[in-house]
Amino acid sequence: MRTGRLEAFSDGVLAIIITIMVLELKVPQGHSYSDLIHTSGVGLLVYLLSFVFVGIYWNTHHQMFHLVRQVSGGVLWANLGLLFCLSLVPFTTAWVSESKFEQTPVVIYGLNLLSAAIAYVVLQTVIIQREGPDSPLHRAVGADLKGKLSIAFDLAGVLSALTIDRDGHVGVWIAMTCFVLIVIMWVVPDRRIYRALHQSEAPA
Amino acid sequence: MRTGRLEAFSDGVLAIIITIMVLELKVPQGHSYSDLIHTSGVGLLVYLLSFVFVGIYWNTHHQMFHLVRQVSGGVLWANLGLLFCLSLVPFTTAWVSESKFEQTPVVIYGLNLLSAAIAYVVLQTVIIQREGPDSPLHRAVGADLKGKLSIAFDLAGVLSALTIDRDGHVGVWIAMTCFVLIVIMWVVPDRRIYRALHQSEAPA
Amino acid sequence: MRTGRLEAFSDGVLAIIITIMVLELKVPQGHSYSDLIHTSGVGLLVYLLSFVFVGIYWNTHHQMFHLVRQVSGGVLWANLGLLFCLSLVPFTTAWVSESKFEQTPVVIYGLNLLSAAIAYVVLQTVIIQREGPDSPLHRAVGADLKGKLSIAFDLAGVLSALTIDRDGHVGVWIAMTCFVLIVIMWVVPDRRIYRALHQSEAPA
Amino acid sequence: MRTGRLEAFSDGVLAIIITIMVLELKVPQGHSYSDLIHTSGVGLLVYLLSFVFVGIYWNTHHQMFHLVRQVSGGVLWANLGLLFCLSLVPFTTAWVSESKFEQTPVVIYGLNLLSAAIAYVVLQTVIIQREGPDSPLHRAVGADLKGKLSIAFDLAGVLSALTIDRDGHVGVWIAMTCFVLIVIMWVVPDRRIYRALHQSEAPA
Repeated sequence: MRTGRLEAFSDGVLAIIITIMVLELKVPQGHSYSDLIHTSGVGLLVYLLSFVFVGIYWNTHHQMFHLVRQVSGGVLWANLGLLFCLSLVPFTTAWVSESKFEQTPVVIYGLNLLSAAIAYVVLQTVIIQREGPDSPLHRAVGADLKGKLSIAFDLAGVLSALTIDRDGHVGVWIAMTCFVLIVIMWVVPDRRIYRALHQSEAPA
Repeated sequence: MRTGRLEAFSDGVLAIIITIMVLELKVPQGHSYSDLIHTSGVGLLVYLLSFVFVGIYWNTHHQMFHLVRQVSGGVLWANLGLLFCLSLVPFTTAWVSESKFEQTPVVIYGLNLLSAAIAYVVLQTVIIQREGPDSPLHRAVGADLKGKLSIAFDLAGVLSALTIDRDGHVGVWIAMTCFVLIVIMWVVPDRRIYRALHQSEAPA
Repeated sequence: MRTGRLEAFSDGVLAIIITIMVLELKVPQGHSYSDLIHTSGVGLLVYLLSFVFVGIYWNTHHQMFHLVRQVSGGVLWANLGLLFCLSLVPFTTAWVSESKFEQTPVVIYGLNLLSAAIAYVVLQTVIIQREGPDSPLHRAVGADLKGKLSIAFDLAGVLSALTIDRDGHVGVWIAMTCFVLIVIMWVVPDRRIYRALHQSEAPA
Repeated sequence: MRTGRLEAFSDGVLAIIITIMVLELKVPQGHSYSDLIHTSGVGLLVYLLSFVFVGIYWNTHHQMFHLVRQVSGGVLWANLGLLFCLSLVPFTTAWVSESKFEQTPVVIYGLNLLSAAIAYVVLQTVIIQREGPDSPLHRAVGADLKGKLSIAFDLAGVLSALTIDRDGHVGVWIAMTCFVLIVIMWVVPDRRIYRALHQSEAPA
């Protein structure tokens, strides 16, 4: 099977995930700036973080399938696994923002991001196993330093929220910093895949 | 008419169905793990089941239309019938999860899955009638054992929830087991259609 | 401009409209069949009607743009006008179902359907004006009896709900019958456009 | 990379944004016209305005990417920036309509429109920098009078809502008038881009 419809379905699901999060933002009851910041301030910040996270997944998904020609049943299910993990992001985002960065919601949010990062690696591995070691994707991904670093940062965030300063908020803030660092790492474009794209498109 | 836009519209509807179910998940009021499990534990499990169910329909829909070249008005309406049945899944899923597996919601959930399974068979039949007995789809589907088994399991689930141990929960758990068995049966990829795909793509 | 992206955007909007209506269905508080019928019975019926209405618009939209090659700015705006009217259907559907067929919500629902029917005729006219009297669409549409009948039935429904038996529900039921008749008229496939499609595809 | 999937994803996000706003419309509790106007009157007007605003962005986005062949990572992120600003429109629209045109919500709504207008200019600039001064888009956009006028009107609206008659509503109405003027300016089709499209398609 070609990748067209898998990409279209994934685009649809990711577009919905990234957009329905805004429905979880509570509209302020009052009409002043302090109402806005009090009711929606935290929510807007966490929404921005989750928006960029889902945007990163769309971006890398987009680039990955650019290097894939055919998909099998295993790839379809690995892809659905990734979409399932990401579909929980609006739920965990809403819990973090309603609890205003309480410990448990932040841990669950981190585990959600971690599950998506692992599901992404699984998807990548399933595709590379199918396409073989000489596939353009395998050469482009290489050692996949970024994917491994993401998992490490997610783990570090979850662990620090779990262990450091459980009564205060120090561990939680370290966790949020880890998640923001992952975002910053990915927003810098992945030159390896771009280079491979450039090479594979050059003769066409 | 070509199948492109029918597939795009179905992808859109299925992507929305699979994603908006997460909006029905209630965000816990408290901030502890027990709040999460108490408020959303059942909901997350039923959401996972429904997500995989809709994912299976997207998967088989995807593979079926891969073997179809042209669609008629009858196919469009049979397809809308399937989408209508599936569009009720978020509603019945929410009722099962809010009632925490009460008898009536589970029966209605089973009837919903049953209606989708029948609508799928209707769609398949309408397409095969149009394409003729020599069509690639007809050869690929064959006796459609899985489709018939799904209907049988759905029926068995509904009947056991209706009749067995109406005061306790035994019948309900047999029903949920039937639904999970359908999921397991389908997640194993359908080698018949894959083989047909392989053959029809090989000479191209 | 080609029609591809206009069709994709319209497919997206129509897929969302047809699916989010299910979010307006209230999940029953209790766990019995009478709770289901009492809380959601009317809602499910009106949802079915609106689902088929939006499905009809997707269907005819699909067939219409199959005969169109290029779109102008005027077509884009006429299309957005149609989508706006249809985007209000979930709102008016929810009002009819929450009020359980009160007079005013039914009148507003009828006006909503009427506005969509008029917006469709406007879109068709804008396209035909652009494509000229010899265009395949113009020949396929002909006198557009169905479009005119839909407007007449919508008007008749609105007027009977407004004037007949304002204290009872007779006028409301005549109105709902009119809306159901429109649905039946359209679900019978439009042989004129199919014939034109057949002719335009035959030599290809 | 080609622009196809970026366009498909943007279409999906814009289709969802434009449609979910209708979910924020509160269904009237009563069943009379005065209930409708009291509960949803303001909401429907603001919804219409926001619908047309998002429609304009879809329209211009559509036309812009018609003149673009390849996208880079920077373009993907600039596009996500625009989508993020637009994804907040349902939230600010709901606040304006629930507060019935209070000063602060109108200012925030104006800032939201302003951020989208700036994000659009950033996206345009990133694409033109990549494509070079001889690109069809650069020639089509020219001095981009409309983009600059939009930013000016947005700014004027925000400033008048902030400074003029803070206790009454005069400044707020001037602001809403500014936003409506932007809409009117854009609904008139952009003949420069159409002309370029016409020229670039003519020899094809």
